[in-house]
Amino acid sequence: MHGTKIVILKKPKLKNPIFIEGLPGIGNVGRIAAGYLAEELGAEKFAELYSSHFMPFVLLHQSSEVHMLKNEFFFWKAKKRGQRDLIILIGDSQSVDPVGHYEIVETVLDFIEKFGTKEIITLAGLNVGRVVEKPRVVGAVTHEELIEKYSKFGIDFEAGSRVGTIVGASGLFLGLGKVRGMKGICLLGETSGFPIVPDPKAAKTVLNVLLKILNVSIDTSKLERKVEEMKRFMKKIEKVQKKALQQLMETRKPVREEELKYIG
Amino acid sequence: MHGTKIVILKKPKLKNPIFIEGLPGIGNVGRIAAGYLAEELGAEKFAELYSSHFMPFVLLHQSSEVHMLKNEFFFWKAKKRGQRDLIILIGDSQSVDPVGHYEIVETVLDFIEKFGTKEIITLAGLNVGRVVEKPRVVGAVTHEELIEKYSKFGIDFEAGSRVGTIVGASGLFLGLGKVRGMKGICLLGETSGFPIVPDPKAAKTVLNVLLKILNVSIDTSKLERKVEEMKRFMKKIEKVQKKALQQLMETRKPVREEELKYIG
Amino acid sequence: MHGTKIVILKKPKLKNPIFIEGLPGIGNVGRIAAGYLAEELGAEKFAELYSSHFMPFVLLHQSSEVHMLKNEFFFWKAKKRGQRDLIILIGDSQSVDPVGHYEIVETVLDFIEKFGTKEIITLAGLNVGRVVEKPRVVGAVTHEELIEKYSKFGIDFEAGSRVGTIVGASGLFLGLGKVRGMKGICLLGETSGFPIVPDPKAAKTVLNVLLKILNVSIDTSKLERKVEEMKRFMKKIEKVQKKALQQLMETRKPVREEELKYIG
Amino acid sequence: MHGTKIVILKKPKLKNPIFIEGLPGIGNVGRIAAGYLAEELGAEKFAELYSSHFMPFVLLHQSSEVHMLKNEFFFWKAKKRGQRDLIILIGDSQSVDPVGHYEIVETVLDFIEKFGTKEIITLAGLNVGRVVEKPRVVGAVTHEELIEKYSKFGIDFEAGSRVGTIVGASGLFLGLGKVRGMKGICLLGETSGFPIVPDPKAAKTVLNVLLKILNVSIDTSKLERKVEEMKRFMKKIEKVQKKALQQLMETRKPVREEELKYIG
Repeated sequence: MHGTKIVILKKPKLKNPIFIEGLPGIGNVGRIAAGYLAEELGAEKFAELYSSHFMPFVLLHQSSEVHMLKNEFFFWKAKKRGQRDLIILIGDSQSVDPVGHYEIVETVLDFIEKFGTKEIITLAGLNVGRVVEKPRVVGAVTHEELIEKYSKFGIDFEAGSRVGTIVGASGLFLGLGKVRGMKGICLLGETSGFPIVPDPKAAKTVLNVLLKILNVSIDTSKLERKVEEMKRFMKKIEKVQKKALQQLMETRKPVREEELKYIG
Repeated sequence: MHGTKIVILKKPKLKNPIFIEGLPGIGNVGRIAAGYLAEELGAEKFAELYSSHFMPFVLLHQSSEVHMLKNEFFFWKAKKRGQRDLIILIGDSQSVDPVGHYEIVETVLDFIEKFGTKEIITLAGLNVGRVVEKPRVVGAVTHEELIEKYSKFGIDFEAGSRVGTIVGASGLFLGLGKVRGMKGICLLGETSGFPIVPDPKAAKTVLNVLLKILNVSIDTSKLERKVEEMKRFMKKIEKVQKKALQQLMETRKPVREEELKYIG
Repeated sequence: MHGTKIVILKKPKLKNPIFIEGLPGIGNVGRIAAGYLAEELGAEKFAELYSSHFMPFVLLHQSSEVHMLKNEFFFWKAKKRGQRDLIILIGDSQSVDPVGHYEIVETVLDFIEKFGTKEIITLAGLNVGRVVEKPRVVGAVTHEELIEKYSKFGIDFEAGSRVGTIVGASGLFLGLGKVRGMKGICLLGETSGFPIVPDPKAAKTVLNVLLKILNVSIDTSKLERKVEEMKRFMKKIEKVQKKALQQLMETRKPVREEELKYIG
Repeated sequence: MHGTKIVILKKPKLKNPIFIEGLPGIGNVGRIAAGYLAEELGAEKFAELYSSHFMPFVLLHQSSEVHMLKNEFFFWKAKKRGQRDLIILIGDSQSVDPVGHYEIVETVLDFIEKFGTKEIITLAGLNVGRVVEKPRVVGAVTHEELIEKYSKFGIDFEAGSRVGTIVGASGLFLGLGKVRGMKGICLLGETSGFPIVPDPKAAKTVLNVLLKILNVSIDTSKLERKVEEMKRFMKKIEKVQKKALQQLMETRKPVREEELKYIG
């Protein structure tokens, strides 16, 4: 695989589904909100995405089982009137090089288009550079006329002057989706933007707006506790990352001593 | 999309059109001149180009609508004898990596070749490293014999000893176009070359030469005012760029805390 | 060749072979163990892999013969009950860029799948950051249930909390193999992790565990002496690498004086 | 063009030709020797190679004509018994990224294979790190048995212990050619290795050995004078390179002021 591939585990029949993206990013806002939603809804995994634009290593579970970096597709079928079928994308990583962002987003758009997807909601953090007491949810849309539709959900649409850019998947899904005739919104939760600090408060705020849009109810009380549990691992993961980078550097040394057996 | 794609909005019938390129570059000379020309002529957009070699983010309009980085093709049909049909290319960005320049230029050449294009005029700035009172227009051509044809338009053809190289699209369109049998000229407006400072004076000088070549009259009096208006936004855009780069760095961290829910 | 290609020298008929990977890496543990195994078994080379993700140079043998950087496939047929056919991969290099790791590993998986391979053993070093008197062999598996199968061979399966990641081919073969339904284990020999110092002690420990798993006996007494001989070349290879990098930098200067004959 | 393409100008009929490579490199030894040979023989150009792995700019001739970076194929037909048809490759540039070296060399090998080429001679400089009074020609071969064949031409075959690696095209043509069953030699002229200083003495020494191998006589007396003339341009070219790099950096700024007309 030079590139990006999707492994399909199951082919659900979906009716006019909304695509929800929550990949890692600023404050992990989107990842936390979408992951919690998928879990609480009992959404079912139906596909996995692998890409050579993720880091070239595996993680290890505590059980000593290897874990490939991947993105995962879940689906959920509407339970009542006023709800919509959902495709939820979460994952371990975004592309680590600029070119890969385009490739992964286009591969995903090709895939979800087959299920009749015409609407996209991306979830992200908005770095405001300071601790936020009451984070707001800022919106950006593919088409100006959508602002009216979404304004009733308490979204701040003064994004243009404050946001400037949306980097990575959350932005490109809207931009490249629009080129295909899709419509959508990005929900950005205000967060302090401190590196690798997950922000459950911002995630919860985004999730609450999302639930109103989707007309879905779940128990959100466990979200903050779940994130608290994660923090214990944070010191560890920093070490893991540093070590992985060092190991990666090691593999870049092409000529090895053993080689000399051949040369000598 | 790993690569570059052109989305066609309309298929105009053009007769032996001249291709005019004005993408961002030194002093934004080409971008300003070509953009102003397209607007004043009332040229019509007929295609858009997207590329994974642009930065992986969307910009936000003040209206909170997302804006994909793209290049745009406009056409204009000759109104009288002595004029020629035109294809004008303007846009937000050139490739951000060296390899992408070749790919984008070749993709555009494939496209405009279908409309019978055999002639190219590229517009660019020439960094002279100091403030220029009366900027000149320096020329570079695909074929030495073209110099005679163009010399009547007040173009300085001592470029060889002063210019050295033409970097990016403005150079490659001539170089790679020539390989296909096309002919063309690059009009370089002398400019101070200060980074991200648009130079309306240089742009106007280039535009005036271009109008003479094309045998076209437009009102150029608004050009400088338009550029003046842009300058108010310049401070802001610098912040936007810095922030976008920071965010991009953020997305390069592949292992995230949320991930640990899976690992633990 | 933009990419990775395998040149087949011979097509052996193999029955349910185990794939053993020993490419260069930390302490060269995997490379030493797999290379020694292939030699002592008298395994036969049947294919070579070349990749544009290796460094763009040739090495020189003492005989003045050029040596392309490559990976090499050996096979060995089971001699008695309780043994299995083997495919052993050793080589000079891993990918020097992140994207290449995925491409090379997938190319190899495509290739060994054709021989009916369903089982993978990768050999690697585990950097413990200090001199280790009695190195242990730490294991990581594709499927948790394999731990029971392998626990009788003296492998430490507390890897999850200690290892974190497995970088490069040894990790990706398990991760990407698992996506194809393959099963496998990575044997990591504890080593000090000093850069470009081959660790024969760690390699021997890994080899001994591997021999037990494979139910194969070879004379391991020559391993340490062989590695000792290699050390004499180590000072030299450091110089070679530095020089190669300098030369590579040289070739990146695109405009050359000779060029000026054309320009002037 | 994402990649490398060859534009064929003429299809010569050649009989068992020898391929001679002289691209830019250390001391420009190969480029000078091969270029001088092609000119003195009156060899005819029959193909050009363009690659996205060259720098993305055009050079300007003094005449203001643009010059694409390219590699050029010349052929020469044997005039008498004991001579061989020749394909000579010279050019402005090698790949500027590691991956491109493989791609360009394989593209050339595919091309020359069609003319029945089975033998390769590459010309390069060998950096000895000090001024050399009497440069020697050091050889490296694809097959050890060729040493006997070439030893009568005054080539030093103690390369293995002194050279270590051959970086870029001169090495990969032998290495990747050997994979296809071709045979060949690299002639390395000892040179001081000072950056961007062409070494006519080393080039002449290499050329004299090459002429003996090819059984060809040309007037070599003008070589040093030609190189002397080039030196006048050397100060200038350094400026050109610096400026080109700066301009390239400029084009990497994707968001431009003009853009704001759209955003605001």
